[in-house]
Amino acid sequence: MSIRNARHPFYDFCDDALADIRRQGRYRTFTPLARDAARYPVYEEELADIPQGREVVVWSSNDYLGMGVEPEVCEAAISAIREHGAGAGGTRNIAGTSPLHKALEAELASLHGKEAGLLFTSGYVSNQASLQTILTSMPGWICFSDRLNHASMIAGIKGARGSTTIIFEHNDLADLEAKLAAAPVDAPKLIAFESVYSMDGDISDIAGICALARRYNALTYIDEVHAVGLYGEQGGGVTDRDDVSDQVDIIEGTLAKGFGVHGGYITASASIVDYLRSAASGFIFTTSLPPSVVAAALTSVKMVRAQNWRREKMFERVNTFRAKMRAAGVPFTMTPSHIVPVPVGDAERCKIISRRLLNEYGLYATPINYPTVPQGTERLRLTPGPFHTDEMMDQMVAALKTLLAEVPLPVVSDNVRGMAEAAA
Amino acid sequence: MSIRNARHPFYDFCDDALADIRRQGRYRTFTPLARDAARYPVYEEELADIPQGREVVVWSSNDYLGMGVEPEVCEAAISAIREHGAGAGGTRNIAGTSPLHKALEAELASLHGKEAGLLFTSGYVSNQASLQTILTSMPGWICFSDRLNHASMIAGIKGARGSTTIIFEHNDLADLEAKLAAAPVDAPKLIAFESVYSMDGDISDIAGICALARRYNALTYIDEVHAVGLYGEQGGGVTDRDDVSDQVDIIEGTLAKGFGVHGGYITASASIVDYLRSAASGFIFTTSLPPSVVAAALTSVKMVRAQNWRREKMFERVNTFRAKMRAAGVPFTMTPSHIVPVPVGDAERCKIISRRLLNEYGLYATPINYPTVPQGTERLRLTPGPFHTDEMMDQMVAALKTLLAEVPLPVVSDNVRGMAEAAA
Repeated sequence: MSIRNARHPFYDFCDDALADIRRQGRYRTFTPLARDAARYPVYEEELADIPQGREVVVWSSNDYLGMGVEPEVCEAAISAIREHGAGAGGTRNIAGTSPLHKALEAELASLHGKEAGLLFTSGYVSNQASLQTILTSMPGWICFSDRLNHASMIAGIKGARGSTTIIFEHNDLADLEAKLAAAPVDAPKLIAFESVYSMDGDISDIAGICALARRYNALTYIDEVHAVGLYGEQGGGVTDRDDVSDQVDIIEGTLAKGFGVHGGYITASASIVDYLRSAASGFIFTTSLPPSVVAAALTSVKMVRAQNWRREKMFERVNTFRAKMRAAGVPFTMTPSHIVPVPVGDAERCKIISRRLLNEYGLYATPINYPTVPQGTERLRLTPGPFHTDEMMDQMVAALKTLLAEVPLPVVSDNVRGMAEAAA
Repeated sequence: MSIRNARHPFYDFCDDALADIRRQGRYRTFTPLARDAARYPVYEEELADIPQGREVVVWSSNDYLGMGVEPEVCEAAISAIREHGAGAGGTRNIAGTSPLHKALEAELASLHGKEAGLLFTSGYVSNQASLQTILTSMPGWICFSDRLNHASMIAGIKGARGSTTIIFEHNDLADLEAKLAAAPVDAPKLIAFESVYSMDGDISDIAGICALARRYNALTYIDEVHAVGLYGEQGGGVTDRDDVSDQVDIIEGTLAKGFGVHGGYITASASIVDYLRSAASGFIFTTSLPPSVVAAALTSVKMVRAQNWRREKMFERVNTFRAKMRAAGVPFTMTPSHIVPVPVGDAERCKIISRRLLNEYGLYATPINYPTVPQGTERLRLTPGPFHTDEMMDQMVAALKTLLAEVPLPVVSDNVRGMAEAAA
């Protein structure tokens, strides 16, 4: 496109990199799906040759409780648009702080039993900006990071130049303790981990990690992105369920999954929150969330806190789905969370099964391939929720049974065999 | 709050850092302002002692054209909420791509005359993620970065470990050329700059920078965040006005300022966009923008492209305001853009004048202090727009005249004297 004397080498680099990605079978095509709010989890797939599109039942949404289609949540957003317009119009400091922002921050602090909360434009940004700012605040920080932490935490940790990162084996407290014990006593330490690891669906031992943190005087930072709204009496996440919120220094969460809207946040002591508010570039120099997003999230958080039946309903649906899978002999990985991974073990096979589910059955389950998960552990990741009916479940179980049999695995790796055997 | 054997040193660090910020007079208090969509730029200030709050005319919004309160834009958002719900429910790859996302990306590509566009959750993220991903793609990248580039560009450039950064003096093409000429011929080069620098309101020589880029085979990356919607026949920014879009490789913009909604984007060649789509962590691992935000932005971009009178109206208002300031003898910095900085020169003075404007006159102009601008160049930054009436302008001019006289500058630095003299 550009006029230049010589073609810049970045153009060739991009062409070559994309060819490589295609050769490895991991080129991603985003399926355009329009959610039908009145019939969630039914979406409409946009198709070139069918003007009205095609109905699809989505099994991969992170709007776990369907709060994003709750009429009260939607009406809160609509009222805020009518009152305040479509955007915030500025950063938090430049006329972009509405009373709604303050109210939501207070609500989130209360949810997690912390003194204060701080909104970010996304969960990704809340992790990246908070961790990077903390780990560059004092000299000599050592960050102990779980091997399977989310990309956004890694971005913040890697971005903190001058700090040291020590990766401990996933959910391995013995390894963590050995590494804490080997570190200099006086260095400021932080342990960064998640509660629910969303790709494998396993859950960390928060109390155990916090006990180590106390012993070695480490700050604790937990990502509860796949747990807020879903676990605990009030939906405060696994820290709420395990009654350990007061043992964790910083609890990070999202408004875009269990709460069904958009944006991210942290909660912590008043001074930690005030420091991050004053120092984190990714917080300061960006337009604040639209008042409509904040109003919808505030309504959703209040509803989810008060209505434990939503969590009970979700887990009933998850358990029913697992029972149907087990009865039909379809392999899946049993997890202590709400996530149901179906091991597939190969990027190409994963894409073929996902495409055939869509084209032949009108069912959508995202293929999860590298770089989101390690190569050889490709999977479909299903998230049954309160809106998935028994009939929808029967349809998915039958389709998976057929397709897993019909689409062979090119080479069965030990890893995949292990995953399949772990299934009940 | 947390139970631990010893208090972690980060708690004391935060207390001390906040005390320092307060001592330097740069502790920020966010004024809670609720926009009244029907009466923009009128907002309601939340006050503890007055239940109904207080009316405030805002002079610092970045919703430059007021598109965020346009009924058609708001109705597009509301329709999308009713149809699709309040949030996207997943990343772009996990059921979070709606046909609206695809349509907006195509519209933005068309606006800038590029092959493709890519949405990000904010302008901050679009800069950070794109620059960091580009500058870590090949070995040996050298990034030539304007000294006054926005924090989000700096975040991406600094985050690109292994690349080299060379800062050139602000808008200084001789300095840029000297530095390009001194760099190794074979190293991949990128020039990162803005069109409108929002704090000083000056505009770069895009054609001149692109001519240097051709001579030294550098990729060009421009941030048009404070220009899209406002400059050019179709609102494509200064690249549109100067007819140089085809000379710039990557044009970055926002949906949250001239377009009045939320989110950020880049446009470029199809393969560059596809590479960033496939490789940028800050794009891949985050929930996509809510369909309602995308629908509102799509409507806004189409309107702003077609309706040149909105730009003409804004500049008429800016010129009228400057004429009124000049006639009253109130100092301001003349700029080639729509931004009207009023030099104040001291953080404390800036805060006092801003607070008195608010409390005594019901006028809101954000104090711009360090770290957003260098110490000694503190200012009020006014952004007159189509909705500011003559009467509102007279009120602001009179208030500024009074307060600048009544609130003395503690020590007049040469810098501030220079800024005041530059005023017409």
